[in-house]
Amino acid sequence: MSELSKMSADGQSGPGAEITMMIEPRLLESLTAITGRDGVLTGADAAPYGKDWRGRYANEALAVVFPSDTQQVSEVVKLCAANKISIVPQGGNTSLCGGSVPVAGAIKQIIINLSRMNRIRNVDATNYTMTVEAGCKLASLYEAPEQADRLFPLGLTAIAPHCEIGGNLSTNAGGINVLRYGTARNLVLGLEVVLPDGRIWDGLRSLRKDNTGYDLKQLFIGAEGTLGIITAAVLKLFPRPKSVATACIAVRDPAAAVELLAHLRANCGDTISGYEFISRSCLDLVFKHIVDTHEPFAGKHEWIVITQLADVLQVPLDAALRYALNTFSGGIIEFEITTNKDDAERWWKLRKNIAEAQKAEGLSIKHDISVPISRVAEFIAQASDALRNAFPGIRIVAFGHMGDGNIHYNASMPNAARNKTFIEQHENEVHRIVYEITASLAGSIAAEHGLGQLKRDEITHYKSAVELELMRSIKRTLDPNGLMNPGKVV
Amino acid sequence: MSELSKMSADGQSGPGAEITMMIEPRLLESLTAITGRDGVLTGADAAPYGKDWRGRYANEALAVVFPSDTQQVSEVVKLCAANKISIVPQGGNTSLCGGSVPVAGAIKQIIINLSRMNRIRNVDATNYTMTVEAGCKLASLYEAPEQADRLFPLGLTAIAPHCEIGGNLSTNAGGINVLRYGTARNLVLGLEVVLPDGRIWDGLRSLRKDNTGYDLKQLFIGAEGTLGIITAAVLKLFPRPKSVATACIAVRDPAAAVELLAHLRANCGDTISGYEFISRSCLDLVFKHIVDTHEPFAGKHEWIVITQLADVLQVPLDAALRYALNTFSGGIIEFEITTNKDDAERWWKLRKNIAEAQKAEGLSIKHDISVPISRVAEFIAQASDALRNAFPGIRIVAFGHMGDGNIHYNASMPNAARNKTFIEQHENEVHRIVYEITASLAGSIAAEHGLGQLKRDEITHYKSAVELELMRSIKRTLDPNGLMNPGKVV
Repeated sequence: MSELSKMSADGQSGPGAEITMMIEPRLLESLTAITGRDGVLTGADAAPYGKDWRGRYANEALAVVFPSDTQQVSEVVKLCAANKISIVPQGGNTSLCGGSVPVAGAIKQIIINLSRMNRIRNVDATNYTMTVEAGCKLASLYEAPEQADRLFPLGLTAIAPHCEIGGNLSTNAGGINVLRYGTARNLVLGLEVVLPDGRIWDGLRSLRKDNTGYDLKQLFIGAEGTLGIITAAVLKLFPRPKSVATACIAVRDPAAAVELLAHLRANCGDTISGYEFISRSCLDLVFKHIVDTHEPFAGKHEWIVITQLADVLQVPLDAALRYALNTFSGGIIEFEITTNKDDAERWWKLRKNIAEAQKAEGLSIKHDISVPISRVAEFIAQASDALRNAFPGIRIVAFGHMGDGNIHYNASMPNAARNKTFIEQHENEVHRIVYEITASLAGSIAAEHGLGQLKRDEITHYKSAVELELMRSIKRTLDPNGLMNPGKVV
Repeated sequence: MSELSKMSADGQSGPGAEITMMIEPRLLESLTAITGRDGVLTGADAAPYGKDWRGRYANEALAVVFPSDTQQVSEVVKLCAANKISIVPQGGNTSLCGGSVPVAGAIKQIIINLSRMNRIRNVDATNYTMTVEAGCKLASLYEAPEQADRLFPLGLTAIAPHCEIGGNLSTNAGGINVLRYGTARNLVLGLEVVLPDGRIWDGLRSLRKDNTGYDLKQLFIGAEGTLGIITAAVLKLFPRPKSVATACIAVRDPAAAVELLAHLRANCGDTISGYEFISRSCLDLVFKHIVDTHEPFAGKHEWIVITQLADVLQVPLDAALRYALNTFSGGIIEFEITTNKDDAERWWKLRKNIAEAQKAEGLSIKHDISVPISRVAEFIAQASDALRNAFPGIRIVAFGHMGDGNIHYNASMPNAARNKTFIEQHENEVHRIVYEITASLAGSIAAEHGLGQLKRDEITHYKSAVELELMRSIKRTLDPNGLMNPGKVV
């Protein structure tokens, strides 16, 4: 109990916060009968779990329940279903779009927090798999494979100590290694899921090939907990890279960066494990707010790419990278290559601290979009033109996973006072401009953070009626009473 | 029309075959109004399309329709839905389990053959994607990417000239490159699908990251046409390998082969693009029936592995392979490595002709199972022991994609006369023994060929009630009238 109490005491909501929802004593009794008395929080103790990572949402749940195994999850869900109480599945509660906290309103909701289900059930080095429970912190999933000379490649550097693998799978998390290893969806061989009626679906297979009907696990991956609760998963492992080389490249413009990526892939193949794109505005914010960060080149450049090659084979990747960069016709201003970890880390520090630097600078209007890689430059050009026309003086901070066509594209006014008014008055307009251009380029308005409650309405503008109806019919089929994570996704 | 007539004339069913189903003239009129007169076959002309690749099924359809675009598919499906006529989606009709032909019985069925929809709509070399229509022959999908210095890696050597990509996706095809590139499911970024009510779902996205709700395309991939008709797809392309090395390795036993694979992956990573396993019984059949095939080593060995490494980087893969093989502790009897294409092809000829050699030898009881890679040796040992105990003298032909845990495991009696009786009397018993062992090792009884009508009942023994009910509820939701490929999968 001590750890949970501490979290509550540390939370933004103290004992004095207003609690309007009371759990019926009989329901509370039933919950504690399942999870033990230390497995249920209510009132002020529960409040911190109703608040989201970004501080946008703070809604009440009747209780937060901490089951310690799949059977307990099943029993809690059955109890909720019998009492028509909605369920909010929660892992590390790091959703950036309100996906893991209750919605506002009078709906009775219980948070089922999976954090106690944090066992690595099995590492099979020969099969290159591990079986883990949903509540494992992502950061805790690297060591066991490493001891077996294997790699688990899902990399979300900023939140890995907090987020949990159940949430990563439920949101089909991306991160810094997608170019090489795919999103979370690609790392899953099997799932165990508690369905909205409390039944347990045991799909914990560890097979590379299985064509025995519909691939049900795909339904739950990326469904943000609206179709069931992922309680365990079989994850793919990979051999550990032994050679690494990193380059920092100043390019003429985004179009050159796009073409360079295609050229690098053609020459270096899947040794390219990262290809990150940074605009001058990002660099300036990083230099301003993050200590011990420096221009990567003697001159100042508008557009920077950091790319990393990694290979299981022991090969001179720096030479391969140099050859590829030297044979690229046009668009590179200058580049440097290193195989030294500290040197590479100095470059990566620029990329990894953009979010932090932005936060220090103040609020901004954020977008997490993707387009086909071949259209990234078009997106940046069109969106920047449109926003600068509509809002003279606007500052655009563009960066991200160009290798996945995924750009974090944020807008603000450099003047802090003006910025506040700008965001209050124009946030929706800015979204509309960016999303319309994204849609016109056949892109996605939620590339890696999901929909949650933040974009649930927004998405209805950009999906066809057929697609929305298909999604809703799947939801109705699996969760006919609409109890599972209500107000999210569909 | 000439090509279709020719196919019918070449088919096993001539004008003299018994035709019991007659299409109503008004329906025929409506179909020809959609596809043109040369887009519909009936009667004896249609009969060849009702017969499957292996010659197990020969069932009647009212007609075979050849739409030439998505709109026509949609209109045909709407017409069928309005008339409560079932639909059998068909591509190259190479299903090995009766998935692409009508079922027996009085159900009114129309075959919608996608072969006329065979355009490559687009190759985007920068995005590493191509957009293709469902009726493209698999073999026709290699050249266009190659001209853009790209690779489409789905490799089904035996049937590539016949099978079509729509069928490959609908069955989540595997083949010889799964270890490196995954099954067909992993090669898809977007789909266009005609739903069972005739509506078109345009999910033709070419995005690496898109978390805007349920990943609907996953429902249709591997669904064997029971949830809708795939009409087009966006497929991933890859850089073309420039270095190749191949090894033929005699190993002590299957357990050594399994451990060697794990060791090779740890040392050579994803350069391993194939790892195929061949038993002595396969080799003997190949030498007996296929001209110009020879023992790979001076001595005769019981278990052979052929593995291929390929890399986009120009690196000495033969040296890497030699190092990896030399550092493997135990289990290798002898090995040879080559970078010469002809030498490699001589080894691959042994593997590629196993199916042909088996056919020449006579019938056998076939299985297409998978288990976790770490349990392949257990599977082979247990299944062989059980079958030899139950049927003394039985010949077991085991081979396949060990890198995917996928073993083709076939049984017959060496004596032809005895074999006929054996198969007639004991096929189900043999299946039961093999499938029970597969299930006890957490495996799949249909690793790559799907369920079709062949294993539709069998699978009900090996899936949980929860899973079967989930599959059926998905089927009911998308196809409430059960018109789409009836009698298959669920």
